Amino acid sequence: MSAPTPAASAPSSSLIPTLPGPSYTDPVIFSEEQEKIFESRWFAAARSAEIDGTGAFRTVDVGRENVVLVRGRDRRLRAFLNVCRHRGARVCMQETGVVKRNLQCGYHAWTYGLDGKLVAAPNLTSMPDVDRAAYGLVPVHLREWLGYAWVCVADEPPSFEETVVGAVAERLGSVEAIEGWDVENLEVGRRIGYDVHANWKLIIENFMECYHCATIHPELTEVLPEFADGYAAQYFVGHGAAFAEEAAGFTVDGGAGLTAIPGVGEDHDRKYYAITVNPQVFINLVPDHVIFHRMYPVAPDRTRVECDWLYLPEVVRSGRDLDRSVELFHRVNQQDFDACERCQLAASSRAYAGGGVLVPSEHHIGAFHTWVTEQLQG
Amino acid sequence: MSAPTPAASAPSSSLIPTLPGPSYTDPVIFSEEQEKIFESRWFAAARSAEIDGTGAFRTVDVGRENVVLVRGRDRRLRAFLNVCRHRGARVCMQETGVVKRNLQCGYHAWTYGLDGKLVAAPNLTSMPDVDRAAYGLVPVHLREWLGYAWVCVADEPPSFEETVVGAVAERLGSVEAIEGWDVENLEVGRRIGYDVHANWKLIIENFMECYHCATIHPELTEVLPEFADGYAAQYFVGHGAAFAEEAAGFTVDGGAGLTAIPGVGEDHDRKYYAITVNPQVFINLVPDHVIFHRMYPVAPDRTRVECDWLYLPEVVRSGRDLDRSVELFHRVNQQDFDACERCQLAASSRAYAGGGVLVPSEHHIGAFHTWVTEQLQG
Amino acid sequence: MSAPTPAASAPSSSLIPTLPGPSYTDPVIFSEEQEKIFESRWFAAARSAEIDGTGAFRTVDVGRENVVLVRGRDRRLRAFLNVCRHRGARVCMQETGVVKRNLQCGYHAWTYGLDGKLVAAPNLTSMPDVDRAAYGLVPVHLREWLGYAWVCVADEPPSFEETVVGAVAERLGSVEAIEGWDVENLEVGRRIGYDVHANWKLIIENFMECYHCATIHPELTEVLPEFADGYAAQYFVGHGAAFAEEAAGFTVDGGAGLTAIPGVGEDHDRKYYAITVNPQVFINLVPDHVIFHRMYPVAPDRTRVECDWLYLPEVVRSGRDLDRSVELFHRVNQQDFDACERCQLAASSRAYAGGGVLVPSEHHIGAFHTWVTEQLQG
Repeated sequence: MSAPTPAASAPSSSLIPTLPGPSYTDPVIFSEEQEKIFESRWFAAARSAEIDGTGAFRTVDVGRENVVLVRGRDRRLRAFLNVCRHRGARVCMQETGVVKRNLQCGYHAWTYGLDGKLVAAPNLTSMPDVDRAAYGLVPVHLREWLGYAWVCVADEPPSFEETVVGAVAERLGSVEAIEGWDVENLEVGRRIGYDVHANWKLIIENFMECYHCATIHPELTEVLPEFADGYAAQYFVGHGAAFAEEAAGFTVDGGAGLTAIPGVGEDHDRKYYAITVNPQVFINLVPDHVIFHRMYPVAPDRTRVECDWLYLPEVVRSGRDLDRSVELFHRVNQQDFDACERCQLAASSRAYAGGGVLVPSEHHIGAFHTWVTEQLQG
Repeated sequence: MSAPTPAASAPSSSLIPTLPGPSYTDPVIFSEEQEKIFESRWFAAARSAEIDGTGAFRTVDVGRENVVLVRGRDRRLRAFLNVCRHRGARVCMQETGVVKRNLQCGYHAWTYGLDGKLVAAPNLTSMPDVDRAAYGLVPVHLREWLGYAWVCVADEPPSFEETVVGAVAERLGSVEAIEGWDVENLEVGRRIGYDVHANWKLIIENFMECYHCATIHPELTEVLPEFADGYAAQYFVGHGAAFAEEAAGFTVDGGAGLTAIPGVGEDHDRKYYAITVNPQVFINLVPDHVIFHRMYPVAPDRTRVECDWLYLPEVVRSGRDLDRSVELFHRVNQQDFDACERCQLAASSRAYAGGGVLVPSEHHIGAFHTWVTEQLQG
Repeated sequence: MSAPTPAASAPSSSLIPTLPGPSYTDPVIFSEEQEKIFESRWFAAARSAEIDGTGAFRTVDVGRENVVLVRGRDRRLRAFLNVCRHRGARVCMQETGVVKRNLQCGYHAWTYGLDGKLVAAPNLTSMPDVDRAAYGLVPVHLREWLGYAWVCVADEPPSFEETVVGAVAERLGSVEAIEGWDVENLEVGRRIGYDVHANWKLIIENFMECYHCATIHPELTEVLPEFADGYAAQYFVGHGAAFAEEAAGFTVDGGAGLTAIPGVGEDHDRKYYAITVNPQVFINLVPDHVIFHRMYPVAPDRTRVECDWLYLPEVVRSGRDLDRSVELFHRVNQQDFDACERCQLAASSRAYAGGGVLVPSEHHIGAFHTWVTEQLQG
């Protein structure tokens, strides 16, 4: 019994193949992706401003690791594997909190400074041969950019400039292009979490193309008419999708948005930009806000997505109604994730064993597939 | 540590061995059964009359595939793998419904005729090199018999005449024997679904023998006294179990049944016939109705069973009370499935590692075991 | 990417390594532990007095087997694999009950005496070649001690004297030391079950050391002040931890306990003793009661613990309030199991891939690790 593999056997210049079906369902492949992608690349773990003040901490899953991010007395943010070096208990059990001076394991009271160093343990003074420096919390690489703390749990992280900043620059034409949004100083106006029953790659593929926009995004194509033609903003370097003439702002009903971010230049006004930072972040730019997605892969067929809507601080603090602004992309998210779940359902079919096909306006997804394949081979 | 294996080591002529325990618990064996049995044989997927009128469709799991059955403009029923040929989304998300003209994928609007052909897709006209015939829905073999749509998701199905019709003929002595029931034109009076925590083979083995009838089926042996002796109707070719003299019909209290089916000959009157069509169907014949079981294996230790009670159309439409008629075999089902679940619980024990034994009135189950073994070797 | 392995690479005399992380998470290792430890050693299955009278039975999981313990006409307790020798159904479905004369399988009525012998089956008389002795229930080794029925489902059990009695003697200095408690004739005053999301070995390790006592057991260290120093009672042969001067008894508030057990000698008065019987039992001795833990491993990260509080029969029957007495160790249990669950959460981290370290007051846990390793190699 042979599975039909049209993509592989009968390609045309219009259609190029996708990844094969098992790539989206095989637990062994997923485990390799956790190791070689999510635990090897930079991962946007938390909004820096939400870990505010000495001793403030936040714990977050990165691949299959749990990481604690904590702010030191020197106001610096640091990250550590959330594992006691003594008997391996999880040190910080809460998702967020504040400690006074130290991180103390709740099992045997081994105590670590906010810089991760082992500073005390019961009877430690009677063990003079113990090298306290060697038994500090295992440090995790951390960089802050766009107001987020990006971590890498690998021993040797790839270049942040190339893999994160470079992804933004490649998409927008230059890294300077994003500076006008001053993303670092915006504030979270709304955060919505989604539990998506689909492989993380389906979510990226979906975000990269707009061939589906006419079918599933009526509100979005109303505001961004060119999306109805199927060409995603991401298809052309530096290109932003223009708002419809009748749209006053990027809102669910085309009504006016919130206060525009002052630094956004005229050439970016009334435009929408979308950026993918592999493997886990989407950034959406419109004149008055930024939508920032982070993905947390949980299983071959399960991904948690956390989405932040970022506005000017004065907008958030004014208490102005954000509902129509948030609602537009919240609907887009729901529509997209529903579509991804439809694909997950069929990924195990023999009809998809050899994968599907990409039409011309989706061909750039092929580069993502190549990137995934290269990571797993590396 | 050696497991006791009496069946293998100390056979007697009265006792012959069953399949070994892992056959009922091993996920690898179950996966092979899905591929080489449920995805390779004819599978009763749906009652044809329930997919009524042009554009009516029904989706159903067959092994690990999801199949859509849809009625065309030519009134013919066709079946397809329910997977879009573009990016692999599930095309029909509902279990049942009606479309106007086409099956359209809800992701990118690729559109298929009711005959499965690709008829439209956004921008398809700008892709002249795409062979629309090559990108139709993947067809699934379909045959209609006894009022059911039987499908086979394999590329090359076995002979329907040999494996389905032949199973009925072999049991009844001839295929003509079932014609009197005119099963195709009966109507579903009741349908009950069961979620059984047992391997599908335990359910077949149970259905094939009546050595258990005296122990667990008080109502059934009241109506069919010979079952109390332990010999199943299936043991003898062409044999039907006679109703008790005091039983007016095949009902839970022995009261009168419904209107007899006109074509059932006198030689079949007041008799019960049982037929197994491997791997998934049981057919029970009594003068006034037919009970039709379909099994859907879900996991090594889990099987969904759907059971239809079929009566003359005028009986169903008259609104007559079917409760006492349905209740008899509904109780038999519950009693049987409870017994199968008891076996599943112990199948992983070292006491069953080498399997159990079949007594003489169960020896015909050995042929089923041989059949299963042959399918997996094939 | 290399995991940090300080224990292996930079040992000091104070710190010795634990088992590596996968030992607590790998399903293959857990399966080997079930076979080579729980299904090969003596396992405390039930309180003998709770299977009281001819025909009384109790079913219990031992490793991956289900065992039925039943009392015969000769008042002897026997144990069998709970699997019918015919088609493998579970014979006794209830957790506890009483049968009149026989154990009868509910599927085909194969019937076994209380001594396990096959005594009847439908049509058995027509199968004269069947050796009834060969088709009895599979017997399981059984010993009674301390009022518990200990079983071993292996064909050849290890020496009960060496592995069970010997463990108690090794800890207390002699087996005679426990006789004063007359554990066999105490009664269960309270039984509490715990569903712990941690590997069984974490629970044993936790029970063996008291380095954690000052951190998580405020009530216990109040009654047993020396525990605050981190040395477990189990660290020294024959040593019992002395009650605090201000503690009248082993209760949650230090108030008076119940009636002291008469045989407990003066040298054991106002002392607490703890014993581990690998792989599954903890025994705690105080002057007025005995706390007896049994563990049932369910999954690599899941263990059910059943804990009995045993008192003099007259105490249990008087209806005296046991709450303050039970509450002390119930809190200790909850505190301990919470700690074990913290360790389970981090056992899969690369920070624990090479394991953690044991401080000097935990070094005796190394012997347990050696024991586990030896069992799996055996």
